[in-house]
Amino acid sequence: MSAALIIGAGDATGGAIAKAFAAEGYTACVNRRARHADKLEELAQSIRDAGHKAHAYPADARDEDAMVALVETIERDIGPIEVAIFNIGANVRFGITDTTAQVYRKVWEMATFAGFLMGREAAKHMVRRQRGTIIFTGATASIRGGSGYSAFSGAKAALRMLAQSMARELGPQNIHVAHSIIDGGIDTEFIRGLRPDFDDAKANDLVLSPEAIAAQYVALHKQHRSAWTHEMDLRPWGETW
Amino acid sequence: MSAALIIGAGDATGGAIAKAFAAEGYTACVNRRARHADKLEELAQSIRDAGHKAHAYPADARDEDAMVALVETIERDIGPIEVAIFNIGANVRFGITDTTAQVYRKVWEMATFAGFLMGREAAKHMVRRQRGTIIFTGATASIRGGSGYSAFSGAKAALRMLAQSMARELGPQNIHVAHSIIDGGIDTEFIRGLRPDFDDAKANDLVLSPEAIAAQYVALHKQHRSAWTHEMDLRPWGETW
Amino acid sequence: MSAALIIGAGDATGGAIAKAFAAEGYTACVNRRARHADKLEELAQSIRDAGHKAHAYPADARDEDAMVALVETIERDIGPIEVAIFNIGANVRFGITDTTAQVYRKVWEMATFAGFLMGREAAKHMVRRQRGTIIFTGATASIRGGSGYSAFSGAKAALRMLAQSMARELGPQNIHVAHSIIDGGIDTEFIRGLRPDFDDAKANDLVLSPEAIAAQYVALHKQHRSAWTHEMDLRPWGETW
Amino acid sequence: MSAALIIGAGDATGGAIAKAFAAEGYTACVNRRARHADKLEELAQSIRDAGHKAHAYPADARDEDAMVALVETIERDIGPIEVAIFNIGANVRFGITDTTAQVYRKVWEMATFAGFLMGREAAKHMVRRQRGTIIFTGATASIRGGSGYSAFSGAKAALRMLAQSMARELGPQNIHVAHSIIDGGIDTEFIRGLRPDFDDAKANDLVLSPEAIAAQYVALHKQHRSAWTHEMDLRPWGETW
Repeated sequence: MSAALIIGAGDATGGAIAKAFAAEGYTACVNRRARHADKLEELAQSIRDAGHKAHAYPADARDEDAMVALVETIERDIGPIEVAIFNIGANVRFGITDTTAQVYRKVWEMATFAGFLMGREAAKHMVRRQRGTIIFTGATASIRGGSGYSAFSGAKAALRMLAQSMARELGPQNIHVAHSIIDGGIDTEFIRGLRPDFDDAKANDLVLSPEAIAAQYVALHKQHRSAWTHEMDLRPWGETW
Repeated sequence: MSAALIIGAGDATGGAIAKAFAAEGYTACVNRRARHADKLEELAQSIRDAGHKAHAYPADARDEDAMVALVETIERDIGPIEVAIFNIGANVRFGITDTTAQVYRKVWEMATFAGFLMGREAAKHMVRRQRGTIIFTGATASIRGGSGYSAFSGAKAALRMLAQSMARELGPQNIHVAHSIIDGGIDTEFIRGLRPDFDDAKANDLVLSPEAIAAQYVALHKQHRSAWTHEMDLRPWGETW
Repeated sequence: MSAALIIGAGDATGGAIAKAFAAEGYTACVNRRARHADKLEELAQSIRDAGHKAHAYPADARDEDAMVALVETIERDIGPIEVAIFNIGANVRFGITDTTAQVYRKVWEMATFAGFLMGREAAKHMVRRQRGTIIFTGATASIRGGSGYSAFSGAKAALRMLAQSMARELGPQNIHVAHSIIDGGIDTEFIRGLRPDFDDAKANDLVLSPEAIAAQYVALHKQHRSAWTHEMDLRPWGETW
Repeated sequence: MSAALIIGAGDATGGAIAKAFAAEGYTACVNRRARHADKLEELAQSIRDAGHKAHAYPADARDEDAMVALVETIERDIGPIEVAIFNIGANVRFGITDTTAQVYRKVWEMATFAGFLMGREAAKHMVRRQRGTIIFTGATASIRGGSGYSAFSGAKAALRMLAQSMARELGPQNIHVAHSIIDGGIDTEFIRGLRPDFDDAKANDLVLSPEAIAAQYVALHKQHRSAWTHEMDLRPWGETW
């Protein structure tokens, strides 16, 4: 039984990705912080209710010991991690003089350091097996430092370099490392609250569908290895950029 | 009956793309220069032999009148062009002082200007219908001007800007314009001749499979419009970059 | 007596660059189209009036024979071309379906092909001497294909790749090839007519000063060869980007 | 009396930058870790011996309280910080599975977080005065995640995004924020030990001269504000890239 690990299975996207890989036959191993353990278990249960396999692993993804243990546990109890996906965001906006050191550090710990921990721990097993897929979720901020986004764009750019560096090192070991650049609003509770025009936008596919993102991640995993993609953007048709 | 137009259906990639879209139910309308009309007809016949639909349209893609006529003919005789793919390469390498004006201009006419003509003519009909997909094939040279590649990288970078500009203008009109960056050797007659280790490389998926590229182009066309990709790289697993 | 060749010495920027290099002791060899021969001669005269050296060479920079002859003439009559600067713009904006083949081709011929001719002809002599500086003027469109800019951004991106390719080939031959990315309005007659707030903007340094651009080009030429710059942006302090 | 603050005045580059700004009339306020306090004082003394002004401020640039105090002290005791330069590197190379969390975090703290602290603290005063220059030293790793460089390229890319974000926010407040991309070996003790061909390379300007880099930083600071540069590369003439 192979496992798909999803770190940051908290928002709509992570959940959709977990469901998509479960539907492909993987045991979805979903993670988010302990304080959302109930919602995480709900997600796992909903996957099992659909006839697929899932386990909830609440843990702080910034905690090295916790992440080492999480990967070990899955490898031992569930099976080989074939797919590992990092999906934690930390989108904040502050002017530079209003950015506290605490915020600057925390955004990096959530959006970069946790990704490093997941990537490294998953890689250890994949290198041994000489196979696997690792996907990191990026954003426009990964390639552009907008005004007020010093913390967020710094963290996302660092995550992108992690993906690039790992792709170059691990590709020749048959491990596919990819990075997405998601540009646009995603259909989440948060966005629903912000946009008065949400229902219209959603009806017209002008917000990213989590299921559509998830389908692309599955497609990345299934690419023939003679033609792997290491970076792709995902953007609603009506988006200007 | 919808049409898929493939300009530059001469090498392995263009042919594979034509077959892949034909297998999806489109009438593959394949184009390459008149002097290869026999091979072009062979390609169309092989698609028909497989039980799909195809027509050969030999023409010089750099000739505005020919391209206008080609698109008109297909729209009138076959049906709406739902997909238009530009696949002409022109990879040459010369030191700057050895690059003739003739070569510099011809590479641009083949790899850029012909792409503009196809893109514009296809767009005219797609804009009217507010739907369609246009894909341009790029290369590493699209984003990097290597030594000796002033003509080729210039032409490919201009084609990439065409794709970007059209994507930004036509996306909000429900027309999906995408650009691929193909990095690595493709399984063609040409490469077979160059690499003594070709059979080994091919057996190990270390050269790009035309079928794998074609599968990605079909996938681009099928993306949910809430999550369109405008650029993606395609590279063999063992490639260093 | 060393020469500085400025192709496209028609607008404010080219003129300022010519004056700046003349002030450094170079004979400014200025070029623009024959129909502006009077203005070109005025520029040369104004440089001579300031006590420096200048010659006017009206010619169509897209004409290979003319460019070959121009460079030969300067090398024979004036002296070695130590600096060659390409400064022709061709900023047009049209929706894709309104872009004629004539416009698309002409923009490339002016903004790219003429740059190739200048670069190649200057390189021939610089390679022989193993020294020299070549600078190409770029724009934001060099790295971004905006809606409506398929022709202009394509031409500018191709020029940038020419600069990159030449820099990689000729750097190790002690020839410094650089590319600028100018982002913002320049103080020209054209912009004065467009912006009602021009005087205010100018007074506050919110439009690029041609003299400031010229000073940067001179600085590029004077860089110590252990630390050459191959690309730099130039943008007014108040510009958003 | 205006101050130029140089964080990371430990290697050849930081020292040369301090000397260059001191020669321009600024009081060079140099910083590096306390354990190198002796060498830091030597640097300050050498500047004073040359007839210029300098003060040594040993401190850990990763320590928020220390950085806040350092900037306050300079502003109170020396004068307004007109120029702030961040020059700490942290170039390490490890395969992903050999990269410890300690290393990954420390490289970020040194190369990114310390830069954030300097940038923010300097910005507080510059925003009040609506003037100033902030320069961050980057590397090729700032824009490319090479194999084995997950920590270093991540940290440098984050620093680059800090620079971009601050440039966009603070430019319209008359504060010039710039980022350099240094590509190539610099003449340091470290490189001297690594390259057997060092003397030859140095004699031929094939390693970056710290003085040449410093001259460019001074030139950035002096740019006319109608034409500011926000990013430039610096690379020896013979470098391939």
